Parts: sequence; C-alpha cells; structure tokens
Amino acid sequence: MISSTSNQKMKQIMQLNKKAKARREMRAFVVEGIKMFRETPAELLLQVYVSESFLAVPGQREEVARKTVSYETVSDTVFSHVCDTTTPQGILCVVQMPKYSLDDLLKKKAPTLLVLEDIQDPGNLGTMFRTGEGAGIDGIIMTKETVDLFHPKTVRATMGSIYRMPFYITDQLQETLELLHDRGVCTYAAHLKGTKSYDAFDYTKPTAFLIGNEGNGLTDAIADQAKEYLRIPMEGQLESLNAAMAAGILMYEAYRQRRG
Amino acid sequence: MISSTSNQKMKQIMQLNKKAKARREMRAFVVEGIKMFRETPAELLLQVYVSESFLAVPGQREEVARKTVSYETVSDTVFSHVCDTTTPQGILCVVQMPKYSLDDLLKKKAPTLLVLEDIQDPGNLGTMFRTGEGAGIDGIIMTKETVDLFHPKTVRATMGSIYRMPFYITDQLQETLELLHDRGVCTYAAHLKGTKSYDAFDYTKPTAFLIGNEGNGLTDAIADQAKEYLRIPMEGQLESLNAAMAAGILMYEAYRQRRG
Repeated sequence: MISSTSNQKMKQIMQLNKKAKARREMRAFVVEGIKMFRETPAELLLQVYVSESFLAVPGQREEVARKTVSYETVSDTVFSHVCDTTTPQGILCVVQMPKYSLDDLLKKKAPTLLVLEDIQDPGNLGTMFRTGEGAGIDGIIMTKETVDLFHPKTVRATMGSIYRMPFYITDQLQETLELLHDRGVCTYAAHLKGTKSYDAFDYTKPTAFLIGNEGNGLTDAIADQAKEYLRIPMEGQLESLNAAMAAGILMYEAYRQRRG
Repeated sequence: MISSTSNQKMKQIMQLNKKAKARREMRAFVVEGIKMFRETPAELLLQVYVSESFLAVPGQREEVARKTVSYETVSDTVFSHVCDTTTPQGILCVVQMPKYSLDDLLKKKAPTLLVLEDIQDPGNLGTMFRTGEGAGIDGIIMTKETVDLFHPKTVRATMGSIYRMPFYITDQLQETLELLHDRGVCTYAAHLKGTKSYDAFDYTKPTAFLIGNEGNGLTDAIADQAKEYLRIPMEGQLESLNAAMAAGILMYEAYRQRRG
C-alpha cells in the first residue's frame, strides 16, 4: 500500500493534475471517481489507484478487478492529498490521451463541427464536449491556445464525452479553415457582422460553427475567413451569451434540423 | 483612506462575500469590477469602495463621482484582501438586493418562466439568468434550497442580468406551481417520462420550464405536478445535459417560436 505523498507515483499524479506540460510530456491525464473509471475505455487505462475505504465497500474491489488486473491501494490520507476534487470518491486513473487526425472528424458526408478559438474556461470547454456529444456533432477543432482539454476541471465537465468526441488541436487555425473550405464545409461565425438569425441557415449541409474566446470573441483574421455570419438574437441589455451556451444553442439548432 | 483589514466596513464586506446568512440579514451583496459598477442601478448602490491605484487611472474618479457622491478609498493591499476575485479591478460595491413579488413575474398575458428546483452550482444559476435575459423570459422562480443567487460567483456569471431578470424565491414550490396552473401557465418538466421532443410543443402560450438539481433532476413530487413532459433528444452515451444548457436550449426554442 502507498502511504507516503513522496512516493514517485503519487508525485507524478500531482504533477499531472497541476501541469499541462506534464500531461503533454506523458501524453496522459488523471480522471477521478467511479463514474469516470466506468467511462474510461480499458485500452486507455494506464494506472488505477484506489483508497483503503474504497476497497472496504462491498463489491467495489470486484468491479475494479473486472476491468483491470493491476491496481494499487493508497492510504486514505495520501489519496485525498493527491486528488484534485475536494471530496474524492476513492478511485483515480491515469489515462492515455485519445488521439485523432483531422480526417477522423471529416469521415461523414455532411459533418457538423465546432471550431474553438482560444476558449479559456475549462468548464466551458468541457460543457461544449458534453453538449456536442448530445447534439451528435462529429468533432471539435480547437486552437493550441485553447485551455487544456485534459485539465481536471475540463475532464470533469465533459462527463465522459472526452472519450467519445473526436477532437483536433491545430496550431494554424487559418490553414485548418482553408482545408475545411476545400472539403466543402461551410464555416459560420457568430459575429456582430451577422444580420441573419442563426435559425435561418441550412445546417444539414457540412457545417462548422466558429466560437471565439470568452472575453474577446473571434479574432478579426478568423472572423474574416468565415463563409457566413450569423446572429443569435438577444433581448435585454446583454452584450453576449456565455460561449458554451452559444455553441450549445447552435449545435442543437443543427441537430433539430437534421432530425427533420 | 481605509488601510486596515480590521476596519469594520472591510470586515462586513468579507462577511458578505463569504456568508449567505450575512447577505440575507443585511439584504445586501457585493459586486466587483467596473462593469458591474456600471450595471448597478444607482438606487440600489449602498456603498462604493475604490483602491488607490484605481483612482490613479485618469477618468476613473470622475466616472465614479458621476454615479455616486459617496465612495471611500481603500489601500491596494486591503482591497485585494477583501475581494473575492483573484485579480481585482479596484472597485467594489455593496448593493441592496432587488425584490420582486410573484405577480411581477406574471404581468404579461403569456409569460415564459424558468422554475429551478435546488440548482446547486453558482455558475449554472448565473448562466441561467444571463441566458434567460437573452431569450427574453419574464422571470425565474427558484426553491429556497437553490444555491444563493447573491453568491459572488453567481453574481459574476449573471453578467448584470441579476439587475434585470425578475426572480422569486419560494419555500413551497408545490403551492407556487398550483398558483401558476391557476393562472393558466403550462408547466413542462424535462424528464425521462417525456416522449415528445422539446421542439414539438407550443411555447407561445404561458409557459414555465421546470429544471431540477444537477445530480438528481426534479424530485418526484414536482415532476408529478408538471402538466407536460418533454425530452431533449441526445445522441451518444450521455445521461443528461448540463442543467444550464438544458434550460438555455428550452428558453431559446421558446424565443424562436415567439419571434415567429
């Protein structure tokens, strides 16, 4: 049993929870809780740690053993210490990052995509993955400057969608948009330039919604590249909707149209 | 100038930031930042505090003085200490809570309302206020067990909608729903019982969407009272959407129908 926070494996987990750089170097991230353990595909599970009290609950040892032969026990104190959550559930996994190519996102004849430029809030990014899965979109493209998808808060907010939603991180968004255009995908920017309401377009064709940073919106360079400008109507005195909310409303409108 | 954290006014601000009980007793809450200062109706402003560096920026003293005659200066160190935000902007207001009756929410012939049962996440609650203003709804009813609307995180997430969206806190949700039914409002529960998709109902009539707690959904007692059950379709393996997202999708569908 691991009973010291200076244990090398525990140190590594803390690094993975705290530093995007550590996650990138290891190509791995940490998920916590029984729900995320269940959602994690067995082939991506690298390490599993359980607390003493977790094992004391009838049936839990058996559930873990059914999925993986190798797990390690950690004392309750050390377990709480390495966790990112304030009320840990007693199970934690180190998981290999899923990896996709841009082509994986473009398999369908008429895909629906979300393109994120520099989203900064982990909760927003995670919620967009979750809502994107619900709306049946085919993938999420994001800039390298977008908040780390494998940040513990983002991972939690995805509610498991992180394993099921193909994604592609680009360091040249302009080139990626050109490529989308070459493939016949229409790019829509939610933008002040927009005069037509978002529900007046046909999203049954290949569609990509461009969503900008929470504070600043899309950069001019990217907004200029968009094929269409749309407007989400707003009453009252609001300047904008929350970025994840705007993305969700657009994706669910596309889904509504596609369901017919 | 206030230069000690043991100053009575500074202690009170810290209490207001930390404790819902202090906010209820004083019927006041704290907002931070220049944007929220601008959004705050002058008649609700109880106290205004600015930091030394805030006053040093040309034009800022004048802006504050145009809105209120009485503000106090606080040393930068003390100001940072009392703020809830990690990078304070140097202006902070103590604000009187707005107050509405249920009738204020039912003024229109065919109102659209949101009814929240025990929402726990301040960010979700704030986002529902913000999106509700955008979608032009007429008010938000919430249970007493819902997270405090005047929690600093909720206030920030509303982006000023807290001043513009009428709300009503009920300690008897079942009675409140009966009253809504008596007034001809149709209540819709997003629920597993739902077989019809959310976009198959007519929300141009008096409408109230019931949204349950993030983890548990609506209680059986409240779900049983609803007049209609709706389903938000979902692809993939999700169990549910984020509560604020579900509310946003429903409110924007109602708004889409009402815009014609």
